[in-house]
Amino acid sequence: MTFPDYVKSAYEDIKSMKIRGAGRIAIHAVKTLRMYISEMPEKINSENMKKIIRVAKFLNSSRPTAISLKNSLRFVLRYSYREENYSSDLLKRCDMFIETAKTSLEKIGNIAEERIKDGDTILTHCNSNAAISGIIKAHEKGKNIKVINTESRPAFQGRITSRVLAEKGLDVTMIVDSAVRYHIPDVDIVMVGADTITSNGVVINKIGTSQVAAFAHEARRPFLVCAETYKISPETLIGNLVSIEERPSNEVIPDDIKPDGLKVSNPVFDATPPEYITGIVTEIGLISPHSVYYVMKEKMGDIEDILRIGI
Amino acid sequence: MTFPDYVKSAYEDIKSMKIRGAGRIAIHAVKTLRMYISEMPEKINSENMKKIIRVAKFLNSSRPTAISLKNSLRFVLRYSYREENYSSDLLKRCDMFIETAKTSLEKIGNIAEERIKDGDTILTHCNSNAAISGIIKAHEKGKNIKVINTESRPAFQGRITSRVLAEKGLDVTMIVDSAVRYHIPDVDIVMVGADTITSNGVVINKIGTSQVAAFAHEARRPFLVCAETYKISPETLIGNLVSIEERPSNEVIPDDIKPDGLKVSNPVFDATPPEYITGIVTEIGLISPHSVYYVMKEKMGDIEDILRIGI
Amino acid sequence: MTFPDYVKSAYEDIKSMKIRGAGRIAIHAVKTLRMYISEMPEKINSENMKKIIRVAKFLNSSRPTAISLKNSLRFVLRYSYREENYSSDLLKRCDMFIETAKTSLEKIGNIAEERIKDGDTILTHCNSNAAISGIIKAHEKGKNIKVINTESRPAFQGRITSRVLAEKGLDVTMIVDSAVRYHIPDVDIVMVGADTITSNGVVINKIGTSQVAAFAHEARRPFLVCAETYKISPETLIGNLVSIEERPSNEVIPDDIKPDGLKVSNPVFDATPPEYITGIVTEIGLISPHSVYYVMKEKMGDIEDILRIGI
Amino acid sequence: MTFPDYVKSAYEDIKSMKIRGAGRIAIHAVKTLRMYISEMPEKINSENMKKIIRVAKFLNSSRPTAISLKNSLRFVLRYSYREENYSSDLLKRCDMFIETAKTSLEKIGNIAEERIKDGDTILTHCNSNAAISGIIKAHEKGKNIKVINTESRPAFQGRITSRVLAEKGLDVTMIVDSAVRYHIPDVDIVMVGADTITSNGVVINKIGTSQVAAFAHEARRPFLVCAETYKISPETLIGNLVSIEERPSNEVIPDDIKPDGLKVSNPVFDATPPEYITGIVTEIGLISPHSVYYVMKEKMGDIEDILRIGI
Amino acid sequence: MTFPDYVKSAYEDIKSMKIRGAGRIAIHAVKTLRMYISEMPEKINSENMKKIIRVAKFLNSSRPTAISLKNSLRFVLRYSYREENYSSDLLKRCDMFIETAKTSLEKIGNIAEERIKDGDTILTHCNSNAAISGIIKAHEKGKNIKVINTESRPAFQGRITSRVLAEKGLDVTMIVDSAVRYHIPDVDIVMVGADTITSNGVVINKIGTSQVAAFAHEARRPFLVCAETYKISPETLIGNLVSIEERPSNEVIPDDIKPDGLKVSNPVFDATPPEYITGIVTEIGLISPHSVYYVMKEKMGDIEDILRIGI
Amino acid sequence: MTFPDYVKSAYEDIKSMKIRGAGRIAIHAVKTLRMYISEMPEKINSENMKKIIRVAKFLNSSRPTAISLKNSLRFVLRYSYREENYSSDLLKRCDMFIETAKTSLEKIGNIAEERIKDGDTILTHCNSNAAISGIIKAHEKGKNIKVINTESRPAFQGRITSRVLAEKGLDVTMIVDSAVRYHIPDVDIVMVGADTITSNGVVINKIGTSQVAAFAHEARRPFLVCAETYKISPETLIGNLVSIEERPSNEVIPDDIKPDGLKVSNPVFDATPPEYITGIVTEIGLISPHSVYYVMKEKMGDIEDILRIGI
Repeated sequence: MTFPDYVKSAYEDIKSMKIRGAGRIAIHAVKTLRMYISEMPEKINSENMKKIIRVAKFLNSSRPTAISLKNSLRFVLRYSYREENYSSDLLKRCDMFIETAKTSLEKIGNIAEERIKDGDTILTHCNSNAAISGIIKAHEKGKNIKVINTESRPAFQGRITSRVLAEKGLDVTMIVDSAVRYHIPDVDIVMVGADTITSNGVVINKIGTSQVAAFAHEARRPFLVCAETYKISPETLIGNLVSIEERPSNEVIPDDIKPDGLKVSNPVFDATPPEYITGIVTEIGLISPHSVYYVMKEKMGDIEDILRIGI
Repeated sequence: MTFPDYVKSAYEDIKSMKIRGAGRIAIHAVKTLRMYISEMPEKINSENMKKIIRVAKFLNSSRPTAISLKNSLRFVLRYSYREENYSSDLLKRCDMFIETAKTSLEKIGNIAEERIKDGDTILTHCNSNAAISGIIKAHEKGKNIKVINTESRPAFQGRITSRVLAEKGLDVTMIVDSAVRYHIPDVDIVMVGADTITSNGVVINKIGTSQVAAFAHEARRPFLVCAETYKISPETLIGNLVSIEERPSNEVIPDDIKPDGLKVSNPVFDATPPEYITGIVTEIGLISPHSVYYVMKEKMGDIEDILRIGI
Repeated sequence: MTFPDYVKSAYEDIKSMKIRGAGRIAIHAVKTLRMYISEMPEKINSENMKKIIRVAKFLNSSRPTAISLKNSLRFVLRYSYREENYSSDLLKRCDMFIETAKTSLEKIGNIAEERIKDGDTILTHCNSNAAISGIIKAHEKGKNIKVINTESRPAFQGRITSRVLAEKGLDVTMIVDSAVRYHIPDVDIVMVGADTITSNGVVINKIGTSQVAAFAHEARRPFLVCAETYKISPETLIGNLVSIEERPSNEVIPDDIKPDGLKVSNPVFDATPPEYITGIVTEIGLISPHSVYYVMKEKMGDIEDILRIGI
Repeated sequence: MTFPDYVKSAYEDIKSMKIRGAGRIAIHAVKTLRMYISEMPEKINSENMKKIIRVAKFLNSSRPTAISLKNSLRFVLRYSYREENYSSDLLKRCDMFIETAKTSLEKIGNIAEERIKDGDTILTHCNSNAAISGIIKAHEKGKNIKVINTESRPAFQGRITSRVLAEKGLDVTMIVDSAVRYHIPDVDIVMVGADTITSNGVVINKIGTSQVAAFAHEARRPFLVCAETYKISPETLIGNLVSIEERPSNEVIPDDIKPDGLKVSNPVFDATPPEYITGIVTEIGLISPHSVYYVMKEKMGDIEDILRIGI
Repeated sequence: MTFPDYVKSAYEDIKSMKIRGAGRIAIHAVKTLRMYISEMPEKINSENMKKIIRVAKFLNSSRPTAISLKNSLRFVLRYSYREENYSSDLLKRCDMFIETAKTSLEKIGNIAEERIKDGDTILTHCNSNAAISGIIKAHEKGKNIKVINTESRPAFQGRITSRVLAEKGLDVTMIVDSAVRYHIPDVDIVMVGADTITSNGVVINKIGTSQVAAFAHEARRPFLVCAETYKISPETLIGNLVSIEERPSNEVIPDDIKPDGLKVSNPVFDATPPEYITGIVTEIGLISPHSVYYVMKEKMGDIEDILRIGI
Repeated sequence: MTFPDYVKSAYEDIKSMKIRGAGRIAIHAVKTLRMYISEMPEKINSENMKKIIRVAKFLNSSRPTAISLKNSLRFVLRYSYREENYSSDLLKRCDMFIETAKTSLEKIGNIAEERIKDGDTILTHCNSNAAISGIIKAHEKGKNIKVINTESRPAFQGRITSRVLAEKGLDVTMIVDSAVRYHIPDVDIVMVGADTITSNGVVINKIGTSQVAAFAHEARRPFLVCAETYKISPETLIGNLVSIEERPSNEVIPDDIKPDGLKVSNPVFDATPPEYITGIVTEIGLISPHSVYYVMKEKMGDIEDILRIGI
């Protein structure tokens, strides 16, 4: 099967990381699929549906580990197994997804902002737009707040967080990842992002997130995860363990000073269990991590739907 | 008061860090004091005792935060308040201290080695001679073991640990400090050192130690602290909080990339509570952290003795 | 806009606390709104819908912090944003709410009663009708039970609980709030009420409730919250922290004996986290506190619905 | 009322335990009810519906404590209270139930298998087909795994588990029930079955299950419950405590060596709280135990539906 | 046996509560016994020792539940079982006890003061001189601190604490006992007193103390007990449970409003386990609660000594 | 070296298990050594001391894993390294040990009895004389108590406990080891014995003991270990892990029904950490498990003493 040029070009743009960021990838893919659907007749026969699905799978293959991409296509094609399908319905689902995805960050920021009280010290780990948007809003609203952020070894993403917040005039203090337990008695609330959320409420995020969560719990501090619902992984419903990438050793120790024989383990994520999570701030509201299965089903359908689409 | 040249030169050698390392500093100071005492008549009158104490205080001032230095002098002068004092007794206490200090590391290593079973994976943090001596002995005895060690930001002391162990042919894996909770299910035992031990059983050690301890506890793994008894701080008996030094920000982030206005907090130690410590391996054996007061009193006397000496 | 007299009078009755109690307020408001709706033509145009909503908002303003009032109006107006609305549908929702609200306490009592075994000792805090209805039913069924109840400082609501239960012939023992941990080893089950329940499963209730919950958890005793589903707060979904009123200092210490300069903090509620809650007994059954989001959405709609109605 | 012969014979087959096993009982009852419904006219009037319900209740009475039997009939009759009912709808629900029940074990095994990593040691308790199906699949897929299983006193069901697994060539080690905490540091994941699951996420299963769960939690090991959704008990929604049978003393100690006056308590099940459960593997996916209320409602309706049917 | 008038009068003064307070009672008793001993010849024969012991027992009987009284006499008579006893030794022990007891509170205050940092908020419960002496010292040293204190129902001893601190110009906030968990996230350190300390490290103190300790632990705040070593109970070494007095019901609810049949339980103390205690501040220093046995033995002898004296 | 006949015969009697039980073995060995010492001249030269030590080592080799045997000989020879030794001193130490050992059980029983309140239910595991002596005393004193005891697989030692207690007329209920967590909410106190106690407060005892301790802790019930101080192992001070014997598989499953290829792991002991132990009841009183090092040193000397004797 050959794909229209705009489909191929979207595929390339995502693959080459010209388009990057969980939200932007998903929106770009859905816009591309929308264009393809818009060329179909109103009543979509089974052959045309197959074509649509093939386009969706092709787009998905541009970045097969991006959970947002997968989920955007699942959302659009949620009812594609039905005998009767209309392009207007599919286009409406495309528009719903795009509209929601565009405003999610804003909504999450607004909800997170509400949880920050005047005088609070907020701790964050790594560099998550969702997590820091509420912090910035609170600052802009005139709340007198402080931020502690980790440097986030090995790639030092915390330096980006520090810079963004410092440039906006916030009172930011950077610490090493080992100093979280030392500082947490002075912290009022913790806010982090998420890479993936599993069907049983576990949050997969930057290595060290589960450490921060454990200390927040040990010192009875609220720990909020800020994430769009498209971070929820239906794969985990069918038992898949989220695979955690091992990155190169030279991120941890430069090759030239690495002793002979030394091994390095450099996992990019870890898993935070739901008992350490006060709540997940999503665009549909602040929910318990144990509500994830219900939200997943509302958005992307049940296990049969997901297996049927095959993305 | 003027001091003999060998006293002044010992003071300089310690102050300038020509002599360094908790054990070596303490031994050097006691040897110096011993020389001074050996020049005294057998029966020491109160004026001579005052001189001895003044020399001790001068030596102590070469490195006033070194707990081993303080404690070595306290050990020697434990009974100096008595009305009758004999130089032979004092010399004997000097010799006892030196003898013990010289063999402590060996003894601690032997005990720690006994706790490592064939096939074990040991995790260590930072770079402690006491903690790794048992690991090396276990390897040399032919036990088939693996080591995981943290890089120990900000100063990367873990790189020294990695190198030392790798050069001896051990199977070592380095990880970032954020990855301890991720790896701990594969760890059989944790061994770390101590900078200072308080009268109520808290261990002050390299930043991040208490994080490692918390995860060992959370996953039901034994957590052993390896330390000479001269790390026990009698100051804490009188309520002193061990003061934790803040080190320069450029250890965490180079000045040239540090955003304007960004603060950095860089504490060098943190505090591990006794409930996370399975035992402390000392030269007198493996003890509970809650036995510290008893050991302190046996070695250095009670609160009155310590206040009386005034070091 | 002017409102009919019966609307104004309902507003006054609620505002003046002539009508009081979460359930009674809600029912009265819905009955009033029902009367207003019943005067409308079957097909409700957008202008009429605006009028209905204005009446609802006016009624709500009589007691803006009463969660049951808010939620009753949200329930009735759940689908008011639709283009087509019929008065018969709205009246049906009014009747559903009233019917449910009237029988909720009875149903909650029946379920709670099932959880009490012959020979049990039940502990309760403050004075909640929902919490004690099951206890009374168990007694009336002939179960041989004992009750321990706290005095519930500062307002001594526990005295009401004691009197109600003692008058019905139950074996009741009153204790001070400080004695809960002392007595809990002799308790078989704890039952309390709720003022508000958040979207992530936290229960806001009389100050001290979270203390009782913590001790029940520490001693492995079941802790049940008894509450109608209209206690669930959709505001918390959008991040609102339930604001906790500070009451006058003279409830804690009479003005005449209060030393100069002494401050008093007298918060009326505290927050019990879901991990200390075995289950919430509602009129729809015994559920996990982590199921609250699902129930909230079934009853009152999602975040968009709630923002749209604007109550 | 007299029942057709095939109904009476199904009743007898279940009662006499000719038909046994949670799944087989449920399927047999639904097939029988299906036959009865298939003899009805398409449009079912209220008299016929009463007859159908009477047959369902009769079938249910053959094994009134079998939760799968109850739930299968509830599933089929979920909408029977509606004014209009059609036999085709009912027959479809029968077929849906049968189809699902037949494939549940297979699906659960597939999901559980995904959670087992090469090199893992799995611990299981008692003898649950659902729990061991994933283990066997992992072995058949060539994963190199080990199993530890408890003997499961008093009835030694662990011996069946051991035999089944050993015969398939797995590396199995049997231990006494008292040795779980001793061995759990060497275990990577725990998998058990369930007898009943309550509306607030508690798992009722073979005595000792909650002990295993507590140790898995204490040592931070994942604890998975494998069970079909028909194990969820709607009775618990209305407060029923799952009654736990006391079995004869001679299962614990033979009568001939039992000392005079010795009592024996021999409960067949215990209760595992949701905080010790990582997830429940069902045929609809891996879910949090706190999602049970939502699943229950989707499958069998709400509290009113269940009370209305009266099974 | 008849006792000298000064002995009888001391007995009366303690019994009638003319002399009150743990420290003052003990000192008064020892001074009285000292006078009696001073009338003895230097070498004390067994008949005279019996007389001394009889006087000690008589003094002890003036307030048989006062642990400080018992322990003061045990301290003095620690070696009375020896064959040779000299009045000068006994007088020296009297003087040692008196000297120590007089300065204990001062020493405890000094140590506790060291633990308070500038800017800290300290929470205290009930009214303990030992606990508040450090707080006052910190204030007097110019540290900028805040205090939260509970009202301490039923007898409102917290009002005394509030008044004492407010009069000295401290920033004090009073709360009800139920509000401790609510406020503890804003607390930096907790300091309380002790009535009795057991041989295995349990602290018996005013009802509610263990509640405060549990919340300090839950929120990772240090919890210090301030108490003289004469609060350690050797009785507990021989298994005695510290008996906890039940006080009159009208302390909890006035008789005139007490409903018929209502029972009241009003225990005066509760028990705080050592795992919730960071340390005990005594006149000999800050120790672990697990060091109590060692201190007890140093001060009052072992189980045989205590049984031998028979007080 | 040849030994006197009575030494050889004592060796045989212990080796052949004619003499058995921790206490009886130790007393027999000390009595034998006493006889040997009594034949020595008052002033013991170094040659004679060597002979005595050789006899001690020979006696020890009759049962090299019996901790009581080792410790009895260490107690007697505690000061044998001194330059001057007198037979009268050694004989006195023999007598002290024998006297203490004979009365230990009685003393432990008395202390444990004090901890049992009228109306209590006590749970015990396996069959320990020390643990049940307090229970029997409480019963004989007329306290109205109940006992729950585990069967203690695989060897069913619980049946002995059940029989002993039932024959004395106690109200005893036997349960399987898996039912401890189920029954513990009805238990007031747990009492067990100990095989060995380590220098850092860990109790090694019959497999399953640590499980019982974990459940007592989880439900906030006191957990007492009853054991003579000669159960404390000085070996553990030098790092030795108490080796835990694996017993034959046919204790768990008879050979004739054991499937081919099935492995069995049958460890005889497990390790209970000090945080689960309320106290250890010894003949010298009720102490914290964290006081063990101090007691060990008082009784058997420090690490140097123990290494010097070489037993």
